[in-house]
Amino acid sequence: MFHSTNPNPSKLALVPFVSVDNMMKIVNTIGASKVIAEIAEYIEADFLRWDMFDKTPRVAAHSKEGVIELMPTSDGETYGFKYVNGHPANMARGFQTVNAFGVLARVDNGYPVLVSEMTILTALRTAATSAVAAKHLAPKNARIMGMIGNGAQCEFQALAFQQIVGIDTVKLFDIDSKATQKAARNLSDSGLTVISCKTAEEAVAGTQIITTCTADKQNATVLTDNMIGSGIHINAIGGDCPGKTELHRDILLRSDIFVEYPPQTRVEGEIQQLDDDHPVTELWQVMTGQTQGRTSDNQITLFDSVGFATEDFSALRYIHDQLQPTGHFVELDLLADPDDPRDLFGMVQRAKTNSSSN
Amino acid sequence: MFHSTNPNPSKLALVPFVSVDNMMKIVNTIGASKVIAEIAEYIEADFLRWDMFDKTPRVAAHSKEGVIELMPTSDGETYGFKYVNGHPANMARGFQTVNAFGVLARVDNGYPVLVSEMTILTALRTAATSAVAAKHLAPKNARIMGMIGNGAQCEFQALAFQQIVGIDTVKLFDIDSKATQKAARNLSDSGLTVISCKTAEEAVAGTQIITTCTADKQNATVLTDNMIGSGIHINAIGGDCPGKTELHRDILLRSDIFVEYPPQTRVEGEIQQLDDDHPVTELWQVMTGQTQGRTSDNQITLFDSVGFATEDFSALRYIHDQLQPTGHFVELDLLADPDDPRDLFGMVQRAKTNSSSN
Repeated sequence: MFHSTNPNPSKLALVPFVSVDNMMKIVNTIGASKVIAEIAEYIEADFLRWDMFDKTPRVAAHSKEGVIELMPTSDGETYGFKYVNGHPANMARGFQTVNAFGVLARVDNGYPVLVSEMTILTALRTAATSAVAAKHLAPKNARIMGMIGNGAQCEFQALAFQQIVGIDTVKLFDIDSKATQKAARNLSDSGLTVISCKTAEEAVAGTQIITTCTADKQNATVLTDNMIGSGIHINAIGGDCPGKTELHRDILLRSDIFVEYPPQTRVEGEIQQLDDDHPVTELWQVMTGQTQGRTSDNQITLFDSVGFATEDFSALRYIHDQLQPTGHFVELDLLADPDDPRDLFGMVQRAKTNSSSN
Repeated sequence: MFHSTNPNPSKLALVPFVSVDNMMKIVNTIGASKVIAEIAEYIEADFLRWDMFDKTPRVAAHSKEGVIELMPTSDGETYGFKYVNGHPANMARGFQTVNAFGVLARVDNGYPVLVSEMTILTALRTAATSAVAAKHLAPKNARIMGMIGNGAQCEFQALAFQQIVGIDTVKLFDIDSKATQKAARNLSDSGLTVISCKTAEEAVAGTQIITTCTADKQNATVLTDNMIGSGIHINAIGGDCPGKTELHRDILLRSDIFVEYPPQTRVEGEIQQLDDDHPVTELWQVMTGQTQGRTSDNQITLFDSVGFATEDFSALRYIHDQLQPTGHFVELDLLADPDDPRDLFGMVQRAKTNSSSN
């Protein structure tokens, strides 16, 4: 099924493409922890210029099986969007629940400059965002993180918090012990102390940070109120679409809540359980110093993460900057570039002549 | 800059990709006229099941230099979107004014099944849509078409009207005579009688159909009222974004106006010159027989074409159906497909081991 592509398309016709294989090569060349830390820097830099972004809630096509979303944004110079699906029943049928790819383009001429897989990249940017938020919100000197849900996102979160927040121990729990075994195995060379737990209560005991990243696509109660002591930072990843939450409502009422983009989080996040006017703080305001993050040792802070388009934009910017240093990409003949822009038809005609004479 | 992609990704990880080169090969293998006629059948079939589509105006990111748009739609089984830019100043800087690419995906699992260039494909589908509309709206036995604007879209329109409507003569005019020479040259083997004209008046004289496809990105008057006799069908392609029109308002007031999707055409089409409640007929209603198209020999019919997402969807469906018969595609390693869906991190880790041991 492989056919040669045009041997001599014009340079303007070509768009760099990062496949899944090349994304893995980029991550393994640089190192996963370092990639996450560097993406975190791009994410924080973009949160610091929040006002420059053209922000819009995702454009979603819902069906009974799931959702397909387009997440566009622009900083005025560069435009980006992510295609991402979410299909809860996929895993049972042998498909990935979530797949994603993304594009960056120049605003001044509309030319795409990058097409990239984003299934792996989304995992990296989600972990980076969580850790950036925790850097501002978690108790100082946090060393131990409890992790409820040990699926696809788990190890990325663990590395991000090790690298950016300074944790040295993770306590793992999943209702499926095989998931915990998988995560513990994958983290065995990470330098983290990994403690596999038999209950959620055990996993959160003695921690300063709790990360919930379960995949249950309904309102679930992964954490109950009595499990949450004062001073904890909660990093809630799994509540990320309408009808899907992880935390008991009482926890939310005791917490100071931080979000990425309120119009999206009110619909998709943990706070869909609360009134529409329940006070929340936007993360960018904490990062820029306009408002404070954690203000006391007893405060419960909650990052109600749903994932926002600017984070994908930051991650794509980072990958775009790694193309030349790593060389891990191919070029796609994606754009038509006739010698005379008005002669699109002639370009097609001449391709016929060229291929029959060669 | 070319690196080998993963030699053995799972079948589920691969998405067929049609490059510009392969799109030209598909067109030249099947023949441009036949491709346009076949796309027209797909477009008409989809207009006939209009109610099944999830319709939404484009999602546009405007800048001072131009616009980048995402055009999604779905028929409940298949989802599609097109990325397309429009940058009027591009040509003067050596870039294409418009570039496009598109994606089809399965609604039931969210997996993309096609990534394709759409710069050429958009030209093909625009011509096919125009001809399908004219089949229902143009005077019977129309043989001569006047074409004002001989740019990138011109030859595709000429072939579409020859193939689908039965015209045998085109009269060409462009304010730049080089564009007319280019189009006349490209159409010399088409079987059409091609008449190059020195004025717009000359080009429309004696015609039954007038196609306007000029690129001027402002309100222009390509056709004035006195140029339009009774019984004419006008195929207005170039008025396709806010502030860009081609026809004098008085022509609109004398015409019965047919449009693709009123919420979009009111903003982008010729009818942006008219009141918001000016009566228009939707093309799908004509095709399904719910309302009549042309009802008299003296009537002036106007297809106010702006291009709608379902047409791109139809064109992508057609190309998807040509993949196996023509073989003109490559497969992109776009989707992550770990053996265990929860073990995304392990997949990345193992890629490192595999590449260092090979």
